[in-house]
Amino acid sequence: MSPRPSRRSAVAPFMAMDALRDARALERAGRHIVHMELGEPGAPAPLRVREAAAAALRDGRIGYGEALGDRALRERIAAHYGARYGACVSPDRVIVTTGASGGFMLALVGAFDAGARIAVTAPGYPAYANILASLGLEAVPLEVGPETRFAPTAAMLAAAHREKKLDGALFMSPANPTGSMIDADELSKICAFCDEAGIVFVSDEIYHGLEYDAPAETALRFTPNAIVVNSFSKYYAMTGWRLGWLIAPEGLMRPLERLQQSLAICAPTISQRAALAAFDATQELEENRAAYARNRALLRERLPAMGLTRFAPPDGAFYFYVDVSDFTADSMDFCKRLLVEAGVAATPGLDFDRRRGRTMIRFSYAGAEAEVAEGAARLAAWLSTQPRG
Amino acid sequence: MSPRPSRRSAVAPFMAMDALRDARALERAGRHIVHMELGEPGAPAPLRVREAAAAALRDGRIGYGEALGDRALRERIAAHYGARYGACVSPDRVIVTTGASGGFMLALVGAFDAGARIAVTAPGYPAYANILASLGLEAVPLEVGPETRFAPTAAMLAAAHREKKLDGALFMSPANPTGSMIDADELSKICAFCDEAGIVFVSDEIYHGLEYDAPAETALRFTPNAIVVNSFSKYYAMTGWRLGWLIAPEGLMRPLERLQQSLAICAPTISQRAALAAFDATQELEENRAAYARNRALLRERLPAMGLTRFAPPDGAFYFYVDVSDFTADSMDFCKRLLVEAGVAATPGLDFDRRRGRTMIRFSYAGAEAEVAEGAARLAAWLSTQPRG
Repeated sequence: MSPRPSRRSAVAPFMAMDALRDARALERAGRHIVHMELGEPGAPAPLRVREAAAAALRDGRIGYGEALGDRALRERIAAHYGARYGACVSPDRVIVTTGASGGFMLALVGAFDAGARIAVTAPGYPAYANILASLGLEAVPLEVGPETRFAPTAAMLAAAHREKKLDGALFMSPANPTGSMIDADELSKICAFCDEAGIVFVSDEIYHGLEYDAPAETALRFTPNAIVVNSFSKYYAMTGWRLGWLIAPEGLMRPLERLQQSLAICAPTISQRAALAAFDATQELEENRAAYARNRALLRERLPAMGLTRFAPPDGAFYFYVDVSDFTADSMDFCKRLLVEAGVAATPGLDFDRRRGRTMIRFSYAGAEAEVAEGAARLAAWLSTQPRG
Repeated sequence: MSPRPSRRSAVAPFMAMDALRDARALERAGRHIVHMELGEPGAPAPLRVREAAAAALRDGRIGYGEALGDRALRERIAAHYGARYGACVSPDRVIVTTGASGGFMLALVGAFDAGARIAVTAPGYPAYANILASLGLEAVPLEVGPETRFAPTAAMLAAAHREKKLDGALFMSPANPTGSMIDADELSKICAFCDEAGIVFVSDEIYHGLEYDAPAETALRFTPNAIVVNSFSKYYAMTGWRLGWLIAPEGLMRPLERLQQSLAICAPTISQRAALAAFDATQELEENRAAYARNRALLRERLPAMGLTRFAPPDGAFYFYVDVSDFTADSMDFCKRLLVEAGVAATPGLDFDRRRGRTMIRFSYAGAEAEVAEGAARLAAWLSTQPRG
């Protein structure tokens, strides 16, 4: 008998990944595609990082490492919290993970049992809901919109807690898909509310370092109880290396270590060796950020000119979350036509917001400047041929 | 409030990993330790593999890949089934995963819902039970011993199914910790029974390629319905690269693709580029295997001479699973003393068999020949000082 898929495998596809697959298929057939569908830096990993990886290759041994990560890297990550935020974090609280994906899995298995209810935002990162479902956890969506600059608030969390008795909250700032940030004052209120109410706060800080107006604060500045998720993928431009980290409360460290031993063994060793150099690559990484800032400025100017006048505040990350309701009520079809007809890959809002995403689209501006400019030009030309509703 | 660990995080520690940590701590303090605790090839990844990784680094872009894996690698893996087993496997059924660890997670989430009962062997790979528990699945242990050469049989599975109504079976051959194999005839019976009974068979084939007498057969030769787990860690000597693969039945591919998008995004890209060269590194890999074979021959001769006369049949992999009941009834304490007093790291049997592991120990012979010889000498000298019960 051929096995049937589990009920819990009936998760929504991650349309950004489907879009990537479709885009790659068109590329194999000879088309040039502008990739605005993926949260993927256009720049390669910093030269120092690649040199460190090459040195590790020459050494030869790329073996298993300790479950919590290489000690030297854990120390370097801990030091980063002092340098970047003025926060004191012990290396003993650092866990190196297989991307933020591996970090979520570990944090969610380690902190929550099946049936737990976890607040997330809508729109929000689509994998959250799928990971939660895989682990028997219930996502409680908090709808965010223009009235709170697309950011969740302590008041919204309190209201959801009264209604649903939450066990956890999982928020990202700067956020995917909106780019919007929770400001420091509100983040401190969220941390305080979670501490009071006994809610485990998982703070997804993977876009930290990519802010364009005010710097992002870490939840660790406000509470020792948050679980912080971070990654080398975004600011450090190391997506394909699959490396991230958690900062966990002391009381969770040993359980998380045990889980990591079984669920992952360890994060990729070659990536860990390479990442040691990432914190010294500031000049190159800041040049990347300056390029994103220019892409952001270009789109902020061009989008309204082509009739896309409403989008979330692009405080950080490298996304515009754009209201396309003047053109379509079916963002999936819209994105498919945009890909095939104009050669621009973008992600339908349905990925991020089941209820309201039919009129929203996410554009990533993480690509090279020339590509983003080309994408904007193709988009403008194509939109000019589209009927407006 | 500081978060409490979840109930499901109360998994047993993976003692091999704890042993590694303790051994590394001794090494940092200046001691020389012989590592016989980890299933880790002593040889580095093949030169061609490291050269392919270096070439990928020079190219620069190590970005996100498709969720199912790079097409070229999927095709290479599929072709391997033809070359190695004479089995026809479509590249469309291949999923590249983050080590076998990522493969288990994906296969188990994709094929089973919470509450499902899955047969595993005792002794067996300890992470199985922990991964199953994390996902709300129930491990049903089948005790194997000398009477079936430490291998599970279709008859044992049928008996367990009558008693417990199984949903799945997860067997490894060659096995960790025993090294023993399920022979081809018995494997075909297991596949047939699973097909008849509607049990999903997950065949863990990560030690394939490391056989010393008869070659291992893949479950795919006997059924299209098995989910096969494999890895580049063992035969291909790529542990720290965290790369493995699944071969899944067609009907599971789309659900598994969706899950992979959310749970992992993709396997490490640099490792995928490197692994493309692994199938062409046969000469180097066969030299590794010949070295393991010599280590195996050495231990097979020496262990009885030092009073360790009973062990599972070391058909494959790189383990001896040894009965130490003449020396101890507490294998954990025994291993700690062996590490501290003799500088040899080994893994207590409790990792593999909660009920009967107190008198068993696993030695890995995957290390360099000089190290394994040194380990055997230290072990013999130390054992000669130990009282026998």
